[in-house]
Amino acid sequence: MLVVMQAHASEEQVRAVCEKIDAAGLRAHPIPGAERTAIGITGNRGEVEIGLEEMPGVAEVIRVTKPYKLVSRDVKQENTVVHFPGSPASIGGPELAIIAGPCAVESREQTFAIAERVHRAGAQFFRGGAYKPRTSPYSFQGLGEEGLRILAEVRERWGMRVVTEAIDNESLELVEEYADVIQIGARNMQNFSLLKRAGRAKKPVLLKRGMAATLEEFLMAAEYVMCEGNYNVILCERGVRTFADHTRNTLDLSVVPAVHRLSHLPIVVDPSHGTGKRNKVTPLSRAAVAVGCDGLIVEVHNDPDRALSDGMQSLYPEQFDELMSEVRQIAAVVRRELPYQLAQNRRVLGTPDAPATAAAR
Amino acid sequence: MLVVMQAHASEEQVRAVCEKIDAAGLRAHPIPGAERTAIGITGNRGEVEIGLEEMPGVAEVIRVTKPYKLVSRDVKQENTVVHFPGSPASIGGPELAIIAGPCAVESREQTFAIAERVHRAGAQFFRGGAYKPRTSPYSFQGLGEEGLRILAEVRERWGMRVVTEAIDNESLELVEEYADVIQIGARNMQNFSLLKRAGRAKKPVLLKRGMAATLEEFLMAAEYVMCEGNYNVILCERGVRTFADHTRNTLDLSVVPAVHRLSHLPIVVDPSHGTGKRNKVTPLSRAAVAVGCDGLIVEVHNDPDRALSDGMQSLYPEQFDELMSEVRQIAAVVRRELPYQLAQNRRVLGTPDAPATAAAR
Amino acid sequence: MLVVMQAHASEEQVRAVCEKIDAAGLRAHPIPGAERTAIGITGNRGEVEIGLEEMPGVAEVIRVTKPYKLVSRDVKQENTVVHFPGSPASIGGPELAIIAGPCAVESREQTFAIAERVHRAGAQFFRGGAYKPRTSPYSFQGLGEEGLRILAEVRERWGMRVVTEAIDNESLELVEEYADVIQIGARNMQNFSLLKRAGRAKKPVLLKRGMAATLEEFLMAAEYVMCEGNYNVILCERGVRTFADHTRNTLDLSVVPAVHRLSHLPIVVDPSHGTGKRNKVTPLSRAAVAVGCDGLIVEVHNDPDRALSDGMQSLYPEQFDELMSEVRQIAAVVRRELPYQLAQNRRVLGTPDAPATAAAR
Amino acid sequence: MLVVMQAHASEEQVRAVCEKIDAAGLRAHPIPGAERTAIGITGNRGEVEIGLEEMPGVAEVIRVTKPYKLVSRDVKQENTVVHFPGSPASIGGPELAIIAGPCAVESREQTFAIAERVHRAGAQFFRGGAYKPRTSPYSFQGLGEEGLRILAEVRERWGMRVVTEAIDNESLELVEEYADVIQIGARNMQNFSLLKRAGRAKKPVLLKRGMAATLEEFLMAAEYVMCEGNYNVILCERGVRTFADHTRNTLDLSVVPAVHRLSHLPIVVDPSHGTGKRNKVTPLSRAAVAVGCDGLIVEVHNDPDRALSDGMQSLYPEQFDELMSEVRQIAAVVRRELPYQLAQNRRVLGTPDAPATAAAR
Repeated sequence: MLVVMQAHASEEQVRAVCEKIDAAGLRAHPIPGAERTAIGITGNRGEVEIGLEEMPGVAEVIRVTKPYKLVSRDVKQENTVVHFPGSPASIGGPELAIIAGPCAVESREQTFAIAERVHRAGAQFFRGGAYKPRTSPYSFQGLGEEGLRILAEVRERWGMRVVTEAIDNESLELVEEYADVIQIGARNMQNFSLLKRAGRAKKPVLLKRGMAATLEEFLMAAEYVMCEGNYNVILCERGVRTFADHTRNTLDLSVVPAVHRLSHLPIVVDPSHGTGKRNKVTPLSRAAVAVGCDGLIVEVHNDPDRALSDGMQSLYPEQFDELMSEVRQIAAVVRRELPYQLAQNRRVLGTPDAPATAAAR
Repeated sequence: MLVVMQAHASEEQVRAVCEKIDAAGLRAHPIPGAERTAIGITGNRGEVEIGLEEMPGVAEVIRVTKPYKLVSRDVKQENTVVHFPGSPASIGGPELAIIAGPCAVESREQTFAIAERVHRAGAQFFRGGAYKPRTSPYSFQGLGEEGLRILAEVRERWGMRVVTEAIDNESLELVEEYADVIQIGARNMQNFSLLKRAGRAKKPVLLKRGMAATLEEFLMAAEYVMCEGNYNVILCERGVRTFADHTRNTLDLSVVPAVHRLSHLPIVVDPSHGTGKRNKVTPLSRAAVAVGCDGLIVEVHNDPDRALSDGMQSLYPEQFDELMSEVRQIAAVVRRELPYQLAQNRRVLGTPDAPATAAAR
Repeated sequence: MLVVMQAHASEEQVRAVCEKIDAAGLRAHPIPGAERTAIGITGNRGEVEIGLEEMPGVAEVIRVTKPYKLVSRDVKQENTVVHFPGSPASIGGPELAIIAGPCAVESREQTFAIAERVHRAGAQFFRGGAYKPRTSPYSFQGLGEEGLRILAEVRERWGMRVVTEAIDNESLELVEEYADVIQIGARNMQNFSLLKRAGRAKKPVLLKRGMAATLEEFLMAAEYVMCEGNYNVILCERGVRTFADHTRNTLDLSVVPAVHRLSHLPIVVDPSHGTGKRNKVTPLSRAAVAVGCDGLIVEVHNDPDRALSDGMQSLYPEQFDELMSEVRQIAAVVRRELPYQLAQNRRVLGTPDAPATAAAR
Repeated sequence: MLVVMQAHASEEQVRAVCEKIDAAGLRAHPIPGAERTAIGITGNRGEVEIGLEEMPGVAEVIRVTKPYKLVSRDVKQENTVVHFPGSPASIGGPELAIIAGPCAVESREQTFAIAERVHRAGAQFFRGGAYKPRTSPYSFQGLGEEGLRILAEVRERWGMRVVTEAIDNESLELVEEYADVIQIGARNMQNFSLLKRAGRAKKPVLLKRGMAATLEEFLMAAEYVMCEGNYNVILCERGVRTFADHTRNTLDLSVVPAVHRLSHLPIVVDPSHGTGKRNKVTPLSRAAVAVGCDGLIVEVHNDPDRALSDGMQSLYPEQFDELMSEVRQIAAVVRRELPYQLAQNRRVLGTPDAPATAAAR
């Protein structure tokens, strides 16, 4: 159910409707829009018969027939733009979000070397796993909190916002504390307990599509996060599993316009996991931007051959520079912007090691 | 790495080897066999060079080249048979394990009505979800601990061992307390935190194959549980996701002989989720037993049309009787047994409501 | 559209209805049943308004809403049983059809050696490719007409009916001449020209499911054959393509009861292509019979390691003996029969090389 | 095997090598390159030991280890560019090939109306099926030769080269006569008889990827055409079949750079079949060009709602104008050109109906 308020409805009227919904044992989700506020109702089974239509300020009460409600464009017309306090970076707005960094945080030295390069190339976000979900229990599982501390230093030094994965409630608590975006990985897309916990977090959530998830399941997973009250969800296509064996996964770019049609949430694309092959990352990044995605999440490593995980799909820093330059041109065609690339002028200025936060924009 | 002890090695010798392994910062997994004990080593990277070959009682030290170690038949020749204290029921032995019950525990009344019927038909295990991972946050999520209490009553009254799903660490703790087998669902097959927690539990784990999991990933998930010390893992094929749309999932029966070839662990088949259609459950149950599975997990409901979840794939109790009778005959051909069916003689004796635990075998 | 005749309708009345249909530019397909005749109408778009209801002997005219008509059980209640003139063998009746032989006819010697063994084990049908659709143009493409001649000799000598693949109109013409069943391979399941040509042939057609064919597409391919007038179609499940990599294809046994529910056509299972691995063929054969299939098509080779194609999935003759013995017991449970196995008594009689045609049953 | 000639080798030397190969019962495929000629050898099993190394003009004889030979970039470094006599259009060169038109040729009127529009928008190629492979035998199967005649008129009038599908040897003969490119559809990708026949045709072949074809199978299908002597093969990605249900097929854009890496053949993308939804065609067209494809094949219909096939995925002519304008900008970024769009200036000139062949470039 969705309550659409009149254009001139007052804040008090909105609050009164929310209170009535809550009093009925349901949950109200006020969603302010450019013209008027809508209030999503969750927790009900079937129709809600508590006389909301008659309340002051209410324009109409409509039934949402799709299984997902809060993620639906029916409920919120305007695109969701995720903002970050103290940073000009955003996800879902006119600027493409570029999230780059190593698969895993391996050491302070490695992480800084990569951060320096991706920041110079124009990335506003830094990625790197401190908790790694690995197929084998005997593979490197990440540095844990030590890794998070390194990531926080990266933010401190270069001003990039930090995206990193949480794999359970314990790690989520720490990720929420140290990072700027809480990533939920493909293997946990239907770990509903974790989704609910992420829904109670105060930081935005980047939700990766499961390997065999339909679009509806993907949106329903986002709904799990949103119905707990966290409306800052960023979807991420990272390839699905098919019979095709020339890439590690099959990147399903058609899901980008499909998400934009059904939902107001932003969607970014991960061409690194989506292909699993270094030489496919840049062409598929161009394609992802051309199809209309809201950003890219790309693995970059300063020494991919010795990476502790996913080296095969990590770009060399030079390749990432190249990717950024190609993507920038495609972005212009689809009327998206990319932040200013620091590479050239910084080299000219000869200050490669100075803290860049202030100068970054 | 695997240390194979001599046939006549003493317990002390085994203990000494384990201590040396642990002292080296690794983990020893002693695996007693019919003829001699083997000791799996985990926690190492590459070769282990601590002079184990020279220790008394050691026959040889061999390198395990497969990515999975403890689940591998290389490490343990004999089939793993999971036993249940105080019950003649087992999984992996000559007797087929029949696990039956509703998708979800909905009420004491519904649960008892179904338990009565499946017990009569010969099921040694009762299934029923107290915690339900649902695609939608607005669907029935299970009764929680109340459901677990009802399941414990079922065990009390009919002597069936209880199998139920845990969806996170909190529910796992309770499931471990109330139930006999901890089920990890398909969506959590690569929830590695949950697998590790299950590996520290004192109860056997039934691990369902993920919707898009390869055989290797499936076995590696079991390895996660085992390498924490819980060797009682039961695998479960429940259908994989493909393009085919005449069933909800595509039941991959070839995985049964494939698992038996590579691993000593038992594997049961879930024809209910594997097909998603009531009329396919019995034929695929026959096929699963014929292919050589160690048991079946089947959804039965006394009123499927009003079930709160998965009604479409739940059998009527009469259909389950029929299934048991057909499966019993197939089992005989593949040299497996099924427990004695109580239905007929109980009807004759006219005591349909008497507690059956004592008389069950 | 389907015209259902009255139970006592005369042959003349049936003929009159067919003539009226043909005269309207449509096509009549009379389908005699146990109780009464039905007449399928194809070639129409939408309703057929030519006054058929009023004709003598007509009980009712009903609209078939499924996209397939002639394959549908709505049109013909009784199972289709394919018979072979001069042979007691059949497909779709109470006896399971066992079709065995090499992937390809390589030589007279190899073919005879295998024929001798599979005949002794009880196969009523012999398979072997004279025209091989190979992924590579540089692989062995079959002996062509020479291969067909060898197959005809096999029929002559052992009385087995011959099943072999046609890959185009030219080969189909020859296969129709020499063989007893025209096989259409998985890669040609939607080669509609070939299907139409097979529909005009005078021999039964064994139609294999395409690697990515839905059930509806599979049935529609059979409809292509039937609507040209050839009603003797045998369907064949041979595995579909999925992400799973422990077998060459994923054998979808659920399609057997699904076909039986929707169609009157028989369906056999190919566990050789369905798994691609010798050690999986026998377990999956047991499963296929248990699920209710109408027969098996199995690759057997006297020297699989030197086979010119598909050696990895071909059984040794001894393994086929074992398969037959296991399958015979499962068949009994599902109330199907298998022909008498000649092996034992022939050994006793000491006449392993004598022509067996006469004695075969 | 591949014979690499010296840079200065004479035509006679090349001919002598070819003759020696042919005389040995094998087949020589001379492949002239920018710097020197290579000669592919097919028909051999294993090494070819006929003393080619010693012949005048031969630089070296190398073994091709990939299963495909003639399609391989190992054999031919330079991109294959397919040219059309009497037309500036090409496929595989710097200019993107735009192939547009209706799914099926339904009538002269419909076809001309669409041709007028796509020509104006800049398409150099016209598509339209005269022979339609349809899932149902009762669906519209195409106008046959009448359709081909209409297509030939389109070429006559607007100068666009014609691409149309052949479904068997008979239709291929006619398509070869009337059209400029012989399309082999996805369902026939492994119809090896048809591929061989296409390999003997004098016109280029556009080969669509099968619904479940791996990259290797796709390239091997092209090899079938090439090894018969037709080296003008254009590959086409048109989506593969997966579990995903938000589009009709899953468009696998990663296959474009994968083909370019392994093969010298051009590859175009079909976003119409690749998505099955009108609103996805333009975004995926942008993505296809961005990923680096050599052209697009797009369905356009003047009245999609009444189209006899595939109306749901056909663009309105206005949408195709828009697509061309967006694709033109992306093309510039990846350094590809698009032909001059006639739309604007023609409107200005007020001559929408005049034959455009002469003015087209």
